[in-house]
Amino acid sequence: MIISMKRHASRDEINEVIQRIEEFGYKIHAIEGEERVVIGAIGVGDTSACLESLEAMAQVEKAVRISAPYKFVSREFKPEDTVIRLGQGVEVGGDEFIVMAGPCSVESEKQILESAELAAKGGAKVLRGGAFKPRTSPYDFQGMEEEGLKLLAKAREQTGLAIVTEVMSDTDVALIAGYADVLQVGARNMQNFALLKSLGHCGKPILLKRGLSSTIKELLMSAEYIVAHGNPDVMLCERGIRTFETATRNTCDISAVPVLHELTHLPVILDPSHATGKRSLVPALSRAGVAIGAEGLIVEIHPNPSKAISDGAQSLDPALWYSMMKDLQPYIALWKEARTAHAASA
Amino acid sequence: MIISMKRHASRDEINEVIQRIEEFGYKIHAIEGEERVVIGAIGVGDTSACLESLEAMAQVEKAVRISAPYKFVSREFKPEDTVIRLGQGVEVGGDEFIVMAGPCSVESEKQILESAELAAKGGAKVLRGGAFKPRTSPYDFQGMEEEGLKLLAKAREQTGLAIVTEVMSDTDVALIAGYADVLQVGARNMQNFALLKSLGHCGKPILLKRGLSSTIKELLMSAEYIVAHGNPDVMLCERGIRTFETATRNTCDISAVPVLHELTHLPVILDPSHATGKRSLVPALSRAGVAIGAEGLIVEIHPNPSKAISDGAQSLDPALWYSMMKDLQPYIALWKEARTAHAASA
Amino acid sequence: MIISMKRHASRDEINEVIQRIEEFGYKIHAIEGEERVVIGAIGVGDTSACLESLEAMAQVEKAVRISAPYKFVSREFKPEDTVIRLGQGVEVGGDEFIVMAGPCSVESEKQILESAELAAKGGAKVLRGGAFKPRTSPYDFQGMEEEGLKLLAKAREQTGLAIVTEVMSDTDVALIAGYADVLQVGARNMQNFALLKSLGHCGKPILLKRGLSSTIKELLMSAEYIVAHGNPDVMLCERGIRTFETATRNTCDISAVPVLHELTHLPVILDPSHATGKRSLVPALSRAGVAIGAEGLIVEIHPNPSKAISDGAQSLDPALWYSMMKDLQPYIALWKEARTAHAASA
Amino acid sequence: MIISMKRHASRDEINEVIQRIEEFGYKIHAIEGEERVVIGAIGVGDTSACLESLEAMAQVEKAVRISAPYKFVSREFKPEDTVIRLGQGVEVGGDEFIVMAGPCSVESEKQILESAELAAKGGAKVLRGGAFKPRTSPYDFQGMEEEGLKLLAKAREQTGLAIVTEVMSDTDVALIAGYADVLQVGARNMQNFALLKSLGHCGKPILLKRGLSSTIKELLMSAEYIVAHGNPDVMLCERGIRTFETATRNTCDISAVPVLHELTHLPVILDPSHATGKRSLVPALSRAGVAIGAEGLIVEIHPNPSKAISDGAQSLDPALWYSMMKDLQPYIALWKEARTAHAASA
Repeated sequence: MIISMKRHASRDEINEVIQRIEEFGYKIHAIEGEERVVIGAIGVGDTSACLESLEAMAQVEKAVRISAPYKFVSREFKPEDTVIRLGQGVEVGGDEFIVMAGPCSVESEKQILESAELAAKGGAKVLRGGAFKPRTSPYDFQGMEEEGLKLLAKAREQTGLAIVTEVMSDTDVALIAGYADVLQVGARNMQNFALLKSLGHCGKPILLKRGLSSTIKELLMSAEYIVAHGNPDVMLCERGIRTFETATRNTCDISAVPVLHELTHLPVILDPSHATGKRSLVPALSRAGVAIGAEGLIVEIHPNPSKAISDGAQSLDPALWYSMMKDLQPYIALWKEARTAHAASA
Repeated sequence: MIISMKRHASRDEINEVIQRIEEFGYKIHAIEGEERVVIGAIGVGDTSACLESLEAMAQVEKAVRISAPYKFVSREFKPEDTVIRLGQGVEVGGDEFIVMAGPCSVESEKQILESAELAAKGGAKVLRGGAFKPRTSPYDFQGMEEEGLKLLAKAREQTGLAIVTEVMSDTDVALIAGYADVLQVGARNMQNFALLKSLGHCGKPILLKRGLSSTIKELLMSAEYIVAHGNPDVMLCERGIRTFETATRNTCDISAVPVLHELTHLPVILDPSHATGKRSLVPALSRAGVAIGAEGLIVEIHPNPSKAISDGAQSLDPALWYSMMKDLQPYIALWKEARTAHAASA
Repeated sequence: MIISMKRHASRDEINEVIQRIEEFGYKIHAIEGEERVVIGAIGVGDTSACLESLEAMAQVEKAVRISAPYKFVSREFKPEDTVIRLGQGVEVGGDEFIVMAGPCSVESEKQILESAELAAKGGAKVLRGGAFKPRTSPYDFQGMEEEGLKLLAKAREQTGLAIVTEVMSDTDVALIAGYADVLQVGARNMQNFALLKSLGHCGKPILLKRGLSSTIKELLMSAEYIVAHGNPDVMLCERGIRTFETATRNTCDISAVPVLHELTHLPVILDPSHATGKRSLVPALSRAGVAIGAEGLIVEIHPNPSKAISDGAQSLDPALWYSMMKDLQPYIALWKEARTAHAASA
Repeated sequence: MIISMKRHASRDEINEVIQRIEEFGYKIHAIEGEERVVIGAIGVGDTSACLESLEAMAQVEKAVRISAPYKFVSREFKPEDTVIRLGQGVEVGGDEFIVMAGPCSVESEKQILESAELAAKGGAKVLRGGAFKPRTSPYDFQGMEEEGLKLLAKAREQTGLAIVTEVMSDTDVALIAGYADVLQVGARNMQNFALLKSLGHCGKPILLKRGLSSTIKELLMSAEYIVAHGNPDVMLCERGIRTFETATRNTCDISAVPVLHELTHLPVILDPSHATGKRSLVPALSRAGVAIGAEGLIVEIHPNPSKAISDGAQSLDPALWYSMMKDLQPYIALWKEARTAHAASA
């Protein structure tokens, strides 16, 4: 069950509701929003009686039964789309299609500032760039760490772009949240539950990437971890799954976008770079991503891909980046029309 | 190596070329097109010397080395897109985006004629419908067989639509080729090599569906079987692959479309119905298919999906079918613009 | 429902039972064994009433409800293990652990006779060897066809081994059944339903290989096709499935062996050669196959693997073959003990 | 390159070697063993010249080029098997086949003490039990945490079993290392690189479980992280990978055992419980695990599986556990014979 309190309910009123729920034998997961407290109750009991009793309480706005194993992130709980404000005035999930772009890793001041320039000029609103890098080999470049975060902050100052960067451990959450506008959870950490819990109170939106072999349901359960621990601002990211096919780096499960739109109110971002691993395929897959209705793209670009420390093969060079963004415009225009029509009918 | 003869080369001239190739130690696979004979030569030898010697022969138009394991179907061999004429004036791979639609199975005269009506009214140019059905269970409906083929022919007469229907065994090729405009090879038969060989001389275009766990390369090798045995008119179909994800019936490997466009000159059709297995996801995936540049769609529709003998859950009802086709129009318009621009620049 | 008639029931008695079943609204699939007719009935109706009515008929031995989608092949229908007699006095599924061995392809008289010698000397009871070869590329060796079948028959004469060889099309069933003791259905044809149906009346046992991406349930459904069309002698073969892992040619789903033993009475053969694709791994996986309780192994061996036309990398050379068979003996002894103990307790 | 110093090389001698390596342009990863310092050098340069120069230095024992991306864990670097001492006198990778057993989670003092009793009586040498639990849902039982660790320590006192328990975050490493004999990295954390690094100096052996969709190479790279950061005592665990098959919880890639034995000197443990997810399949897969040559098993058992908080379906009850261990003995005897023969021949 999910119970929404009325706006500005007092601490005593909330406690009263919690006590009532516990009397019915349920366990509590509270989440405190800025304006409104929402309470999740889990367990086995007489749900109908409990819901009836709660709805009769003056301070309760709504009390509903959620059948999915994920509660807060389900459409059942919240039918309207979630709009997430990133800082720098960027909103994901609203009326604008948001492109995030940048290099795989922050490599140097020159490289990240040029990349930011490139991203902004092409029409991106968010700069991506890894300072803490998850690398398969311990002998590969592991990232510039805090030095890289400082450079990202500098790039934000110069371009006005918001910053998204990866966090790999609960130990680093506070440090990274001090610099970034969005904290990214990488595919390999999607079920790093210690990390997910620690993001519940980091105060920044999260970009949660789907694990290489994670189901859509597991992606939603991981989002639920973050939300249940206090942070409702989660963007989901489809970045390709692992299959037998080797012609692409991963297999883009593009149908996950409309599946997620049916199951959750959270925005969905497509990553055509990791999904394909090959520069020449990125523009076509990006068009498909806009057409299928994703809320945004996250794309790897680099001022000089042949010299990139990581992921050069999938990074767009400046010319391909500009031409792709130009070609996407009519698709984005159709995306906006559909969005407006949908909003009008809702 | 692939050797294209000049137009109207005589039998003697061809034999002379074959003899020369064999002197260099290669094995021959000849393919005779309507206007021009093309010869494939396979083996290990001094390719450079052989090519040089062949190009010096007057009756040879072009002699090229192909590095891919698939020869005739590779872009290396034929850089320009293949346009396939289906009968009923329909061309796939050319300037028009082609939608094929119809029920999973032919169930009755009423059902198939209504479906054809529906398909045509929505804007489809080809009617799909199975008369020989590959079913996992021996106890499920196996199709109306020749009776179904006759009904499809009747539907063609009434609507002018071309007909695509599945062939499951080399034994049935001649029978089905006598009725259909296009013979479909189902996913489970993609590596039924006896069937593929027998399609080389059936005289009709083929719609070759990708196997559930077949790589893109294997799909091209299966197409090569058909072409090497004499039939250059093959359409490839991405219909979803098998992965661990169960939220959809299969996982649509949409990136296969641009990958195939890089590797082959054959047209690519997307099947959003089998790729998702769920009606509500079909319109979104169809938009993505147009946007990513597929040459066409094959969609399951049914006058009354809840009464369909097979695949009801993924079949569009009339209202959803019409609304989807309406919504696709601006995407198809963008597709045509890109096609024209591409043709102009080529 | 499955209805077993009493031994030697007359045609009239059988028709009476069929009529009764149809009165209850079910559809009939009859299978005629040598000694006993068994009737499968499929449909929706009052099963309890129908079973009661049938069991009251004098000529009916047993009438049972089968909940699995596969009927004849399920343990529910037939709790005791099926023993299959192959010819040459070989029984699979009984008290002996059966090893089948031989080259991938029949390449020449010398090669197949030497291979047969090798197989027999190592302790195999069945010789494998492909005369009709399913090859991914149309340019690869496609097999010696009938000439190869004749050589296999010659090898049988000389060594007393039974022969298993692949059939790729319903067109070839009669030809191959004229030579072979067992007809093998390859992984790529596991859902070639036309072929499966035609094997129902071929008069020879079948070795049905699991498809590259087929579930265990689908494997059983394909076996059901063969049995429902009249041939109860089906051996199932686990030969590795397709996954993301590339260190081996396929991923051996060895747990499929005990899973199948729970679900079906048919014997299960393990193919460690295709499962791994690498000679050095075959002995270890063979030990595991015996230990887990498979009824036999099918192993690729070659007098000179480095000269094999196909699958050389996974074929055992004579020395490795002999040493493997020697090392397997104590495991096979444990296998027999367990078999005897199981038989005694049953 | 990997450079082994002579025993008891001094700090100055080591620094001299490091300086030489850096002069050739390589980057250093040092690992200090108890008796001997080993230096890894990564980079691009004139390897042959560098190796020659290093081998000429008096304090260098051996300097070798390693072609695999994993260095310290490769057979190339260390041909002889690694034997790991766990505490409580248990050695993995030596002459004894080691069984680890216990419940999924520590649930209560009574439950864990009974489980330990059960494990010891059946012949296990190590007790497993989770105190920090990675659960897909935030609403599921997350473990008893430090209280659970204390109960595990108590069980060790009472039974003499060594303790293996999971660590989920670098934050918890020191705490858990204070109680456990072995720290387990769960499948979902196999590429939690922050955690892997922090295990380099934890002072306890590691049981590293293969990720659900991790390749064998990636498993070795993750082991390399731990070893390169200072901890050579890593056991690898095959616990099933994620595929399309749903008849078992995961698909046991049993061939990974001999593949790993070819590539690495580290011991390999098989987990038949997670690999199958089904109690009835565990004994058969355990036999296969012994026969294929794994160095040990880790098995879930529970005094009362139907009341287990997690993984009840795959936990053995006491009767099945005892009978399985009894049935395994002749296979373990064959395992020891092979081990001894191998040692004698080496």
